[in-house]
Amino acid sequence: MIELSKSPKFIQNVLFENEHFEIVKCEWDQDSCSALHGHGPSQCSVLIEEGIFENKTVMGFKTEIEIHKAGEVFTTPLGAEHEIRCVSAKGKTLHVYSPKITKEIATEDPHFKLDSKDQDSLDLSLGESMSWTQVQKLLNQIEKASVTTRSPYFMNQLFSGIHPQTLAAESVMNRTRTTLATNEASPVYSKVEAEVIKMLAKKLGWNPRTSEGLTVAGGSAANMMAIHCARQKLHPETKTLGNQSQKYRIYVSDQAHYSFLKSANALGLGTNSIVSISSDENGRMIPRNLRHQIGNDLQLKLQPLMIAATAGTTVAGAFDPIDELAVVAQDFKIWLHIDAAWGAPAYFSKTKSYLVKGSDQADSLTFDAHKFFGSQLTSTLFITPHQSVLFEANDVKGGEYLFHESEELDRGRISWQCGRGPDVLSFWTLWKNLGDQGLQKSIDEKFELVQKTVQLIHNSDRLKLISNPEFLNICFQVLPPKGSMQDPKSWSVKVREKLILNQQVMVNYSHNENEGYFIRMILAHPQIDVQHVHKIISQILEVD
Amino acid sequence: MIELSKSPKFIQNVLFENEHFEIVKCEWDQDSCSALHGHGPSQCSVLIEEGIFENKTVMGFKTEIEIHKAGEVFTTPLGAEHEIRCVSAKGKTLHVYSPKITKEIATEDPHFKLDSKDQDSLDLSLGESMSWTQVQKLLNQIEKASVTTRSPYFMNQLFSGIHPQTLAAESVMNRTRTTLATNEASPVYSKVEAEVIKMLAKKLGWNPRTSEGLTVAGGSAANMMAIHCARQKLHPETKTLGNQSQKYRIYVSDQAHYSFLKSANALGLGTNSIVSISSDENGRMIPRNLRHQIGNDLQLKLQPLMIAATAGTTVAGAFDPIDELAVVAQDFKIWLHIDAAWGAPAYFSKTKSYLVKGSDQADSLTFDAHKFFGSQLTSTLFITPHQSVLFEANDVKGGEYLFHESEELDRGRISWQCGRGPDVLSFWTLWKNLGDQGLQKSIDEKFELVQKTVQLIHNSDRLKLISNPEFLNICFQVLPPKGSMQDPKSWSVKVREKLILNQQVMVNYSHNENEGYFIRMILAHPQIDVQHVHKIISQILEVD
Repeated sequence: MIELSKSPKFIQNVLFENEHFEIVKCEWDQDSCSALHGHGPSQCSVLIEEGIFENKTVMGFKTEIEIHKAGEVFTTPLGAEHEIRCVSAKGKTLHVYSPKITKEIATEDPHFKLDSKDQDSLDLSLGESMSWTQVQKLLNQIEKASVTTRSPYFMNQLFSGIHPQTLAAESVMNRTRTTLATNEASPVYSKVEAEVIKMLAKKLGWNPRTSEGLTVAGGSAANMMAIHCARQKLHPETKTLGNQSQKYRIYVSDQAHYSFLKSANALGLGTNSIVSISSDENGRMIPRNLRHQIGNDLQLKLQPLMIAATAGTTVAGAFDPIDELAVVAQDFKIWLHIDAAWGAPAYFSKTKSYLVKGSDQADSLTFDAHKFFGSQLTSTLFITPHQSVLFEANDVKGGEYLFHESEELDRGRISWQCGRGPDVLSFWTLWKNLGDQGLQKSIDEKFELVQKTVQLIHNSDRLKLISNPEFLNICFQVLPPKGSMQDPKSWSVKVREKLILNQQVMVNYSHNENEGYFIRMILAHPQIDVQHVHKIISQILEVD
Repeated sequence: MIELSKSPKFIQNVLFENEHFEIVKCEWDQDSCSALHGHGPSQCSVLIEEGIFENKTVMGFKTEIEIHKAGEVFTTPLGAEHEIRCVSAKGKTLHVYSPKITKEIATEDPHFKLDSKDQDSLDLSLGESMSWTQVQKLLNQIEKASVTTRSPYFMNQLFSGIHPQTLAAESVMNRTRTTLATNEASPVYSKVEAEVIKMLAKKLGWNPRTSEGLTVAGGSAANMMAIHCARQKLHPETKTLGNQSQKYRIYVSDQAHYSFLKSANALGLGTNSIVSISSDENGRMIPRNLRHQIGNDLQLKLQPLMIAATAGTTVAGAFDPIDELAVVAQDFKIWLHIDAAWGAPAYFSKTKSYLVKGSDQADSLTFDAHKFFGSQLTSTLFITPHQSVLFEANDVKGGEYLFHESEELDRGRISWQCGRGPDVLSFWTLWKNLGDQGLQKSIDEKFELVQKTVQLIHNSDRLKLISNPEFLNICFQVLPPKGSMQDPKSWSVKVREKLILNQQVMVNYSHNENEGYFIRMILAHPQIDVQHVHKIISQILEVD
């Protein structure tokens, strides 16, 4: 028996224990309480043998409290944290963990760099068979050697952390493995996809009944689909004849994602068709410059195809002025696309919806649920208010062996993919649990954290803000310790490398001509709070 | 205490039971044995308290036997089946199931049609929040309402069944959520992907050190990438300038997948660029006709870009004569692609490798591990022996905020996707466990089953084979019962509908001009055997 707290008491007795499962019996005094804890990759089930208990579950942004009595069982979803309190005079519980909790994973010690020891011990070679017991051990090693993206100290990408709800959904998805190509193979998931598209259209101010959409393989694929749809609308004969002599032009800000270049290349337009419009000091495309460029291009007999506004740039998190770009788009009758891969949470916000004003005028949008909303990577939606454009742009002959229903039902007809998993279930499950209000709260809480973080940066004379954050990206430069001979323009990169090597924090970095290198910190993790930021900033300043 | 067998005895006592977990104690006589059974979505752990036990685990194609003694614990992977035998004089075991076994899922009753009752009870709407307990119940309903693609009676798609090994891998993948774009975010998975590509290149007879590849979003995406790479090789200036005045031509058989049309459309070549070459009575492209067509096209100043051989057509499972097409490709210096999305298992076969003879001469290949090999949907590899073509075709500027290493390490540079999950781990895990030999056995066993199935069809005067199967597709027509007034040309479709409505079997159908409609049965499920086929054929003949 291990006594875990003195007064009120909480005693723990391990009945069985092995690497695969563990059964623990606990005895509780009134008001005794466990710490808030997670179980790593274990499923945890608690049976109340005697007494009444309060179980608080923290799942990403969301906290749920439930009361349980003797005879009841409650479980904690994979990846969630919980806290148990005995609210009766005495209590007895039985806990089952399967597989047994691996302490190192449960405590979520961050691991940001594959060291040579890890690397040498991982036998990834194929050819000879290996017993399942050995393969399971190897998978466990792979898990431990992987970058802990679920840690609040992982701020390297435009995603961080995992919502336990999405893990539960992914598990169902994996066990029901199917394809979204046809309604008969995925009658439920096709409806789930349609519901997410409808509700996103509503948020954008589009008609949810006539808007259309599709899960695609990431934000880059959605941007590529947008260009393809714009081309279809302008020159439908391209579908059979290919690009003719048109010299298309696609206008993006100089801060836009590189996928526009990749897309123009793939679609046979050439990267020269991407015209980079300069942005202001906050990284927002300058509408005046856009208008001027289009005017010039028209004189040169070039063919404007699309204006692509970025809602949330990768480095600064800037939002192009969509409403102003919409006026230009209307004046010249050009397709307006919004790359909201990163910035889409603004559509769910109460305080920052002004960032995406004018979106109701847009012709298409890219939405990555795997970024801020921490869903399965990837869970991207391409949506458009133009009801038939995806069908017109993508349906071809030759699928008769597969498609026996209409294109509204057989979604493969409007896609470039044939087999395609129901990745959208992950985000749907999160939304279902949190509701609009929960999603709103999750993003608006982060905006408050951004303000506190900016204050912390201002408080240090060795940290220099690079741009005023509009979103969840905090770009700042770290100056070398006083008296150091290090170059201030590159010190941030050295700090970053050191923090990664020490397995402390993983932030990313970028560069601009005036300032040199700086750190980009992303506040996306569902549980990150000001204490984490405090600790990170201390660690950044400690590097010498 | 429930006595499950008489002599030798096997007694079962449920200690705790609830919807969330179950602990069972068993007492065994020597040689008493459980039935071979699965646990649905439950994790099962067995602790041996006393005695020695033999545990036989069946995971897809593979059977493993292990001996366990008192104090040891063994677990059965999700989705596997096992059989426990007591080999000592007496034995005692403790079994933990978490969550509790759901009998309906564990018994894998097939469910092929969403009925109106299911549909009405599924509240898929978004907006309001729902408690996690309710959402979990809803996910459970979604699982039950989904098409049971894991059943051996699911033969509707070019995939069926799930390998338990892949479920374990997917679980690790979900918990370590990361992107394959950069080496720093996925140091292990990048190596896993490289190993799979190297080993596939070897199987094809390509130099594994200089071959290149990439996980892409399905077979269609791989075919699209192939055309893009061929274009890059022929006209590298396309990357910046776009398609110029070339009238490209891509040659496929008239049985090829529709994704070539979709790709030509997306890449700006137009669907007219896809030239359909007639196939022989077995569905194989006729090389003589191909050569003739290319000659004509050259006279018309058209630009041959690619010959795409199909290894395993969707309907008949036919293999184009790759070696003969390779000669044509060499004569005219045209890129030779192999769409082996479905037929790639032939590269692992001992008896049928002649089907893909000449592949060492090819320039690229599409490989879907989610088809026959039952890996995560999708797990597609695009591979090519041309070392730098993916980099040349796809690298652009603008990714400096993300890519800090070389393109060999930062794989996002050679991809159209930026964020991209490590889907390849699923197939890698299966291959690691089974080895080359295991994969070979899995496919060669199926070829034997095809022969037995053909025999069963020949034995019935109401079943008519449409083509002689080269692979795992069995196409046959069902004739109406004697004396029936039904049209023999459409009866197969009616039979199919009836079997689906009865939740018995889900096969697909196709059509040709001479014969009318016929059934397409796919023998891909890892555990399907002649008994299943027998039962299916009986059910087909019972429909009236």
